[in-house]
Amino acid sequence: MKNFTKVDFPVSKIRRYLEPGPIVLVSSKYKNETNIMTMGWHTVLEFSPSLIGCMITSANHSFELIKKSKECVINIPTVDLINEVVGIGNTHGREDHNKFEEFNLTPVKAKIVQAPLIKECYANFECKLVDGKMLGKYNFFIFEVVKAHVAITPKYPKTIHYTGDGIFMISGKHMNMKKKFKAQNL
Amino acid sequence: MKNFTKVDFPVSKIRRYLEPGPIVLVSSKYKNETNIMTMGWHTVLEFSPSLIGCMITSANHSFELIKKSKECVINIPTVDLINEVVGIGNTHGREDHNKFEEFNLTPVKAKIVQAPLIKECYANFECKLVDGKMLGKYNFFIFEVVKAHVAITPKYPKTIHYTGDGIFMISGKHMNMKKKFKAQNL
Repeated sequence: MKNFTKVDFPVSKIRRYLEPGPIVLVSSKYKNETNIMTMGWHTVLEFSPSLIGCMITSANHSFELIKKSKECVINIPTVDLINEVVGIGNTHGREDHNKFEEFNLTPVKAKIVQAPLIKECYANFECKLVDGKMLGKYNFFIFEVVKAHVAITPKYPKTIHYTGDGIFMISGKHMNMKKKFKAQNL
Repeated sequence: MKNFTKVDFPVSKIRRYLEPGPIVLVSSKYKNETNIMTMGWHTVLEFSPSLIGCMITSANHSFELIKKSKECVINIPTVDLINEVVGIGNTHGREDHNKFEEFNLTPVKAKIVQAPLIKECYANFECKLVDGKMLGKYNFFIFEVVKAHVAITPKYPKTIHYTGDGIFMISGKHMNMKKKFKAQNL
């Protein structure tokens, strides 16, 4: 698995990694219990404050940990972690599971939140719950990203995008269209 | 540009096309005014009813058309439309613009909503606004997809994913991991 060297990244610019729509691993901690879940239903909501909206079904064990702790970490895995992504998505997070051990992932202490970063992921975004009003009706969390850690290389990580039915799309080539943009739209 | 043959598609399964996170073109109509905008900040919220959450800045002219008409169409372009996607994203939708004419796109009458489908896109999802309570605070629309039209080929369209800074990621290869899923998670 990759051993990324990461640096602090401006939280107002994390759309670079989330807007393309990768599957992410969400780590959470409440009291002595830690969990990891896969998540594909998320969207950027604002640059500054750096807001992310995430739908997490209440059937998921992580739902309670995140709701109670009001924190989580959104971790972006690359394609070398696809087996772990699928395995985690197919394991229910009961208390007798330690998904870090089970999937040979390394928890790293976060700077601001209690939930651990996943070392083997390309990027880690520490999140605080800022609005839970849509939890009752839509299981929709609004988080503020309060700290971002991003690998210095590669520039374009091979991210994993879920289509349902067990099929994943892997990110392909990049096209620079900057010359066709008005400056204020970049 | 592509000339897709489309068929009806189950609205409960459109996550297949939206969860991977493509940039989309949103067409709208209110009274005699029609517009198209690009949108990258969206997420699936529910399978059935088929709910999609979308952040559309209120500075965008489409915001008012969608808010007033309570309808829109979410269209999924493929990479052959990348110049149109960038052009539309860099054109302000004033009343003297007809973006269909300007970008040589073909409006097609929708089945349920008044907003037109964009013929040259791979998929078209007719949407009704079902919850506007988060418009004031987050410019966040919750739509129900009431009708879906999807091209019969190719199976995996080359979609466009925006990273900011004028750079787009194009969807790459697909990996079938179905054998590693529990049946109930597919």
